[in-house]
Amino acid sequence: MGDPAGIGAEVTLKSLLRRPAGADFLIIGDHTIFRASSRRFGISLPLHVIKDIRCVDFNKRSVNFLDCSLLKSNDIRYGRMDLRYAKASMAYIRKALLAVSLGKADAIVTAPVNKAAIRKAGFKWMGHTEMIAKSDGCARYAMMLIGGPLRVALATTHIPLRAVHRSISAGRIKDIIILTDEALRRYFGIRRPRIGVASINPHAGEGGFVGDEERKIILPAVKAALKKGVNVTGPSSSEALFYAAYRGDIDAVVSMYHDQGLTPLKMISQREGVNLTLGLSFVRTSPSHGTAYDIAGKGIADEGSMRNAVMLAADMVKRRR
Amino acid sequence: MGDPAGIGAEVTLKSLLRRPAGADFLIIGDHTIFRASSRRFGISLPLHVIKDIRCVDFNKRSVNFLDCSLLKSNDIRYGRMDLRYAKASMAYIRKALLAVSLGKADAIVTAPVNKAAIRKAGFKWMGHTEMIAKSDGCARYAMMLIGGPLRVALATTHIPLRAVHRSISAGRIKDIIILTDEALRRYFGIRRPRIGVASINPHAGEGGFVGDEERKIILPAVKAALKKGVNVTGPSSSEALFYAAYRGDIDAVVSMYHDQGLTPLKMISQREGVNLTLGLSFVRTSPSHGTAYDIAGKGIADEGSMRNAVMLAADMVKRRR
Repeated sequence: MGDPAGIGAEVTLKSLLRRPAGADFLIIGDHTIFRASSRRFGISLPLHVIKDIRCVDFNKRSVNFLDCSLLKSNDIRYGRMDLRYAKASMAYIRKALLAVSLGKADAIVTAPVNKAAIRKAGFKWMGHTEMIAKSDGCARYAMMLIGGPLRVALATTHIPLRAVHRSISAGRIKDIIILTDEALRRYFGIRRPRIGVASINPHAGEGGFVGDEERKIILPAVKAALKKGVNVTGPSSSEALFYAAYRGDIDAVVSMYHDQGLTPLKMISQREGVNLTLGLSFVRTSPSHGTAYDIAGKGIADEGSMRNAVMLAADMVKRRR
Repeated sequence: MGDPAGIGAEVTLKSLLRRPAGADFLIIGDHTIFRASSRRFGISLPLHVIKDIRCVDFNKRSVNFLDCSLLKSNDIRYGRMDLRYAKASMAYIRKALLAVSLGKADAIVTAPVNKAAIRKAGFKWMGHTEMIAKSDGCARYAMMLIGGPLRVALATTHIPLRAVHRSISAGRIKDIIILTDEALRRYFGIRRPRIGVASINPHAGEGGFVGDEERKIILPAVKAALKKGVNVTGPSSSEALFYAAYRGDIDAVVSMYHDQGLTPLKMISQREGVNLTLGLSFVRTSPSHGTAYDIAGKGIADEGSMRNAVMLAADMVKRRR
């Protein structure tokens, strides 16, 4: 259910009112808090509350709720950073990882956590994704965003623009191309995914006239992935590549940096985008928004992105090969 | 008509078959070449061919054609770089500038030229825009792209991504904000334009956690423009800002670098985008594509972008205050 001060409980409640057929659900969090949210927002979701993950009882009538009982009070202070909340939100995710390792869950959908609070609370992780990957023993993983007709994997994420050119490497880009190819084959039912790799410079560097990272870093990565049998093209100019993806001429884009991928994606799917972690041994999705402290507790949060994260996770498990 | 080896003549012909009411047209180029294109593509446009700009005779039945007679042969070699073509394409633009200075034209629409050929032919300009601005005695100018619901002015253009952070300056960004404001008031009939300025780092730098250009460079520019009375906000995260522009919540984006602006814009308006030069004393537009040597001479070029460039120029002159 994510950070209790954010919109996690609200969008979880709203998303699970209409549940996709063929999937069973387990919410992990603090029951007193979740119940208070349920009352506050006037949303009644039938829950089967358990204290031990082994007691999970999947059925169509109710949603399992694993009560971690970490926070005593049901008096939530919405929109306020609280280190106890940060610690609790990380504990919920550890329980979810336990559920997966016990075979009680095929997929994890994480509601938003507060990364700044997590760091302040003394966690060494940049965020929950790093913790999840480490726990899965996963050395190569990447973030993919899905929205509208676009699927975009990122070679770099939250770093300054000026650091992008020295943060990309042929090895890392090759890994992400291969992770993207594997995910599209395994979970999306695409037999031979068409993957396009973006350049970092205008017009793909104009043959070296505007930057040389295309020739020195990106092209070698594309060639290495081609050798592995991946159906990949690039480096292509960003403007041409996202147009091709938008039209459906390719199945995914490997983007070099955050704003290159997120700007076109969020422009057309601000409220519907989903994050997917590539490379894990299980399915993990999350909404593409944050804790949204500014509107938390008001009952006005849009659950579109969370619902899509839930639907995508269910679809991916169903299609898994 | 642009570079004779490109698609300039073709898209000009196709665009002017249906001419917007209330505007008169003058094509500048080589008549033998244009006539050959007209025959090749089977497009007959009634022309009033003149040799001297002062003989222009605007009427509804025909389009004026100023024949520069620079290229002897009508045997065009499409898709091949030719320095004589490069020189001719620049001469056509000089004639257009002359037409404006003589009061014979209110706007210039430039068909694509070959920038590499222009440089090779010994011109000192990076491209025709620089020459046009210099000829206009214009020290502050900028490029705006218009496509779909987006209007995007660029703070930097064809430079490597790694140079962006050191190429932006508060002074230049402030100038572009003001040029954008002036253009929207003067030519677009927007009384109080809402302008959003993009950040260069993810999440607008997360308060300095991911880059400091927002605080050091962009925010001072926004503040300076606010002091001048411009209705401007930012720096805002790129993903949020383009969504706002796409929804129509703002009238224009000031983007920090080429791919930040062009990727979302071209994704939704690949064949319809128009370039507009801000800051000139007259209207100047151009299609957002290049010479397209790969398809030149084949008759398959899409004139959408050129037609929109013509329509926009006509609209801007009509609305000018």
